[in-house]
Amino acid sequence: MMPIKPIEWRNRQLTILDQTKLPEKEVTLACLKVDDVFQAIRTLQVRGAPLIGVASAYGILVGLLERRKEGSSDLKKDVREIGEYIQSSRPTAVNLEWAVKRMIRRSEEIDQKLEFDDFFREMEKEADAIFREDHDMCEKIGSCGSTLIKDGSALLTHCNAGALATTGLGTALSPMYTAKKEGKTIKVYVDETRPLLQGARLTSFELMRAGIKTILITDSMAASLMQEGKIDLVITGADRIAANGDTANKIGTLNLGILCSYYKIPFYIAAPASTFDFLIGSGKEIPIEERDPAEVTFFAGRRTAPEDVNVFNPAFDVTSHALITGFITNRGIITPPFRENLSQAFSR
Amino acid sequence: MMPIKPIEWRNRQLTILDQTKLPEKEVTLACLKVDDVFQAIRTLQVRGAPLIGVASAYGILVGLLERRKEGSSDLKKDVREIGEYIQSSRPTAVNLEWAVKRMIRRSEEIDQKLEFDDFFREMEKEADAIFREDHDMCEKIGSCGSTLIKDGSALLTHCNAGALATTGLGTALSPMYTAKKEGKTIKVYVDETRPLLQGARLTSFELMRAGIKTILITDSMAASLMQEGKIDLVITGADRIAANGDTANKIGTLNLGILCSYYKIPFYIAAPASTFDFLIGSGKEIPIEERDPAEVTFFAGRRTAPEDVNVFNPAFDVTSHALITGFITNRGIITPPFRENLSQAFSR
Repeated sequence: MMPIKPIEWRNRQLTILDQTKLPEKEVTLACLKVDDVFQAIRTLQVRGAPLIGVASAYGILVGLLERRKEGSSDLKKDVREIGEYIQSSRPTAVNLEWAVKRMIRRSEEIDQKLEFDDFFREMEKEADAIFREDHDMCEKIGSCGSTLIKDGSALLTHCNAGALATTGLGTALSPMYTAKKEGKTIKVYVDETRPLLQGARLTSFELMRAGIKTILITDSMAASLMQEGKIDLVITGADRIAANGDTANKIGTLNLGILCSYYKIPFYIAAPASTFDFLIGSGKEIPIEERDPAEVTFFAGRRTAPEDVNVFNPAFDVTSHALITGFITNRGIITPPFRENLSQAFSR
Repeated sequence: MMPIKPIEWRNRQLTILDQTKLPEKEVTLACLKVDDVFQAIRTLQVRGAPLIGVASAYGILVGLLERRKEGSSDLKKDVREIGEYIQSSRPTAVNLEWAVKRMIRRSEEIDQKLEFDDFFREMEKEADAIFREDHDMCEKIGSCGSTLIKDGSALLTHCNAGALATTGLGTALSPMYTAKKEGKTIKVYVDETRPLLQGARLTSFELMRAGIKTILITDSMAASLMQEGKIDLVITGADRIAANGDTANKIGTLNLGILCSYYKIPFYIAAPASTFDFLIGSGKEIPIEERDPAEVTFFAGRRTAPEDVNVFNPAFDVTSHALITGFITNRGIITPPFRENLSQAFSR
């Protein structure tokens, strides 16, 4: 069921599946330098909020091995510097920040008199723990999210919040995999997700490989399907969720939230604890990354718009909590009022 | 201001600008056979509801010249056969049907004893009249639509209902060109319009050439702009409008209608008389053309989705009249209640 491993750490070597090459080719990249990890995150070769957290934790290990060759000695300082460098690769991703901070905190707890190998082994344990916890979170999201899915349902999802975005079954897709494993027959409509087509390239790829009936649409077709009563449930992932439930996710998520509200279709966000940022009160405080206009004006090297056209290309949008039916988390399904219920669920 | 002529009839020869090659290349096609016209309409080399009406009228002339070479004699029968053939190239387009029927009706009025050249000249006058009337309609739509546009406004449009879709200034874009001519400063956000990118390729091309500030977005970004209060007015074209105001237009139009309703932004449809089909009571009766899945799964010859993925690819959607603020027509701006007010406006 999970033949694709998007990230692997073995014998002190980090390998990443280059997701920009999917579905045409399955190419893996050996990350020998911290710069390889930085570039892989920056260019979306590795992507998905939880997975870039994991990648950044291992990225710090890659950086430590690299500095050791150069003869560095202050390991704690090294971890902090490497972590800050990796963190600058994508500003919006809360998991990236979270994982880096956790690795830095761990490095500060370790006895600084330890030899490199012993220090490194402790840091490696922390990265492995982040990997394993992510895997387990996916499983919990899957089992509680699956209770929302009836046999014979048609779902819709956006972008890729699946196995390719995590170390396990994914977030938004995990309930679908779990429903299938439980014997339910489902079909999933997949938004292609312009500009980078993560839905077309990645989500349909992994759903089809798992034997789930998959129907690809352009982002503008969801309304038409809902109008015909063809969608029972929408689940997407999240990049960052504020304390009040406002959710930053791939551009186009807000659009789905409004459509679901209009057609009275349940709209759920699936996300692990690490995606919730209780320091941020509402969506207005979430910074939105603007990306390269060429993502919109070029495709496969071919220009699709006039030269010099202005482009607005935000990576994310913010869906108001008022449009969200509930959150599928590793602490169960959270329903409104979100400010109270989220804080309660995650203070346990 | 209108350097691009999407269609031209001169010295009994029809030339069409191949819009599938824009914005990279400006290639014109000489249509020597009726089959060239059929293919041009079918493959969207010529497109836009009003323009394919004009193209089909001239297409009948091309067919008549072709049959004359082959020595046909029953001209009235020829017109009917050629017309029916051209009409089969795109089932949803009401203007195509309308123009073909008008040419057939005209052929039946002409004295059947006339020599070919005299008969042809009469038919040519009718096609030229369709061309000219379309041009004048655009101008009227422009002048009444422009009253809705304030100096400094930001507009949003979908697909291409512009000069490239008509013989004049377009339908949805005509009010924008007119506003500019009247000295108003405006900017226009353009949905790229997947799958065929008519917004990116055509609308931004013609708006920029006319010196209007143009900002290209993917279809999924409109919600985000509206949330930030950046859109004052949305205008799109239409392929077919039912008696109650339900409107079939390029897939994605319904989506904009719902967003405008949510954010309380005026949402207008610009269309000439020929797009209104009073024989159709509501949108439920409008047939929706499904197009080739490869439009979604391939781009510029490169596969963007797994092989064998299922695809849903409707060319149009139907926007409920309840989501439409008004119609900008060559008979003025029509507001609700639509059934009454449309029938009144077009019975004059």
